[in-house]
Amino acid sequence: MSDKVHFYKHRVRYADTDKMGVVYHGRYFEWFEAARTEMLRDAGYPYQKIETSGILLPVIEANCKYFQPILYDELVTVKTTLQSFTKAKIWLAYEVYIENHDFPKAEGYTIHCYMNQKGKPVRATQELVGFFRSLH
Amino acid sequence: MSDKVHFYKHRVRYADTDKMGVVYHGRYFEWFEAARTEMLRDAGYPYQKIETSGILLPVIEANCKYFQPILYDELVTVKTTLQSFTKAKIWLAYEVYIENHDFPKAEGYTIHCYMNQKGKPVRATQELVGFFRSLH
Amino acid sequence: MSDKVHFYKHRVRYADTDKMGVVYHGRYFEWFEAARTEMLRDAGYPYQKIETSGILLPVIEANCKYFQPILYDELVTVKTTLQSFTKAKIWLAYEVYIENHDFPKAEGYTIHCYMNQKGKPVRATQELVGFFRSLH
Amino acid sequence: MSDKVHFYKHRVRYADTDKMGVVYHGRYFEWFEAARTEMLRDAGYPYQKIETSGILLPVIEANCKYFQPILYDELVTVKTTLQSFTKAKIWLAYEVYIENHDFPKAEGYTIHCYMNQKGKPVRATQELVGFFRSLH
Repeated sequence: MSDKVHFYKHRVRYADTDKMGVVYHGRYFEWFEAARTEMLRDAGYPYQKIETSGILLPVIEANCKYFQPILYDELVTVKTTLQSFTKAKIWLAYEVYIENHDFPKAEGYTIHCYMNQKGKPVRATQELVGFFRSLH
Repeated sequence: MSDKVHFYKHRVRYADTDKMGVVYHGRYFEWFEAARTEMLRDAGYPYQKIETSGILLPVIEANCKYFQPILYDELVTVKTTLQSFTKAKIWLAYEVYIENHDFPKAEGYTIHCYMNQKGKPVRATQELVGFFRSLH
Repeated sequence: MSDKVHFYKHRVRYADTDKMGVVYHGRYFEWFEAARTEMLRDAGYPYQKIETSGILLPVIEANCKYFQPILYDELVTVKTTLQSFTKAKIWLAYEVYIENHDFPKAEGYTIHCYMNQKGKPVRATQELVGFFRSLH
Repeated sequence: MSDKVHFYKHRVRYADTDKMGVVYHGRYFEWFEAARTEMLRDAGYPYQKIETSGILLPVIEANCKYFQPILYDELVTVKTTLQSFTKAKIWLAYEVYIENHDFPKAEGYTIHCYMNQKGKPVRATQELVGFFRSLH
């Protein structure tokens, strides 16, 4: 598998579950956040450094499809890939696996725009575009 | 506006916000949950009664597009509509407004299947289909 | 009952529950936040106005005792009282009830200090002290 | 330091923060949950195994004191110790550190009772008491 793919592990907590006995659907988006943050860090350009450079990456669309429930205490792996990017936005895709299962339990994506500290849309810097290219 | 549309109000909390000073994108899905639950209750068939009848409505897909940020203490209105339904699933759509703004700050949807207590997909009962028809 | 007591209502969501089928213990603190915020608003001095005046009220201690579980879809009432205050901090107490039950399901408190926008402890203004006195 | 102490690491996420730019006070209780769960697992008796044996450990009291704010992306270590236990309940204590700081940013505790699957208080089994003794 390509080294452009990032794997993030998370142990399912009580706090993640709901009374159906499975992970609450809204929690997956927190895992996606953790997964993309660690992908950026491991690739050498932590999200906080991007923010310090003056560019925020707010989520402009989030999506998740839930194929099968995930249970308490299961060890989840979120597989993250940078699907595509332009000078205006970036698209990340996620697959959620548990141990010993080949098929993902869920898959999703987030789309982010580039914004400055005042909340205005901006173009990505050459440096950032170069970094994203290295991840793609 | 049609009485098939339901409005749910929520005051934005510190707990909803993140360090960008705006509502965290993952929280919208909790508002959607509250909104559809109150829609069902107000229409006379509370979700808990559906569950008691043996049918759960787990989320199989969730989506949200974020057009503009929502801030602390703003009074949010989630407008919910039943977009479509079949014997196998139901599609709900949401628009998120704040006071004195005509344009939604965000819009999203959730798709739910019908499942029995053992986690197996089932067909909706005639009663449930009739109820959804009345909402459509 | 004294008009110094404030009542906040909340309907329990799936998002509030965990796989034990009851409300997750950490969620009560979000209800406490909503309850105290609405108490301040209803008393005529919204928390956001306090912040605008330059004083933040960060939580320096939070506590909750859980006597009995609270279930999905129950209608919760949080009863809030201002227990005490000084020029350095304020103590709020909460009791959590459900319908048709005289005994609280949980009780807790939060203690807040006064802080300026730079994160430094400050004394409460005369105006704020006067407001808190009116609530006590 | 005694090997009876357990250390759990967590990277602060956007989802953990609020608009004050710091971790929301209610989130610490999720970290405490993760910390005690990993302490039990590492000590050889995972919480899920305790549940399978028929005993749940619901939280009957939770407390946290916040000394200094914790910021986005900081690497948090939760230090957990089993403070005391009886045949009726167990008391766990937590200290929250960030890197390169000797003084905890926060400290807290949770008290748990023993409950069976029907929600009735029960006595701890000899096995469980023996296990807790080994942690103390």
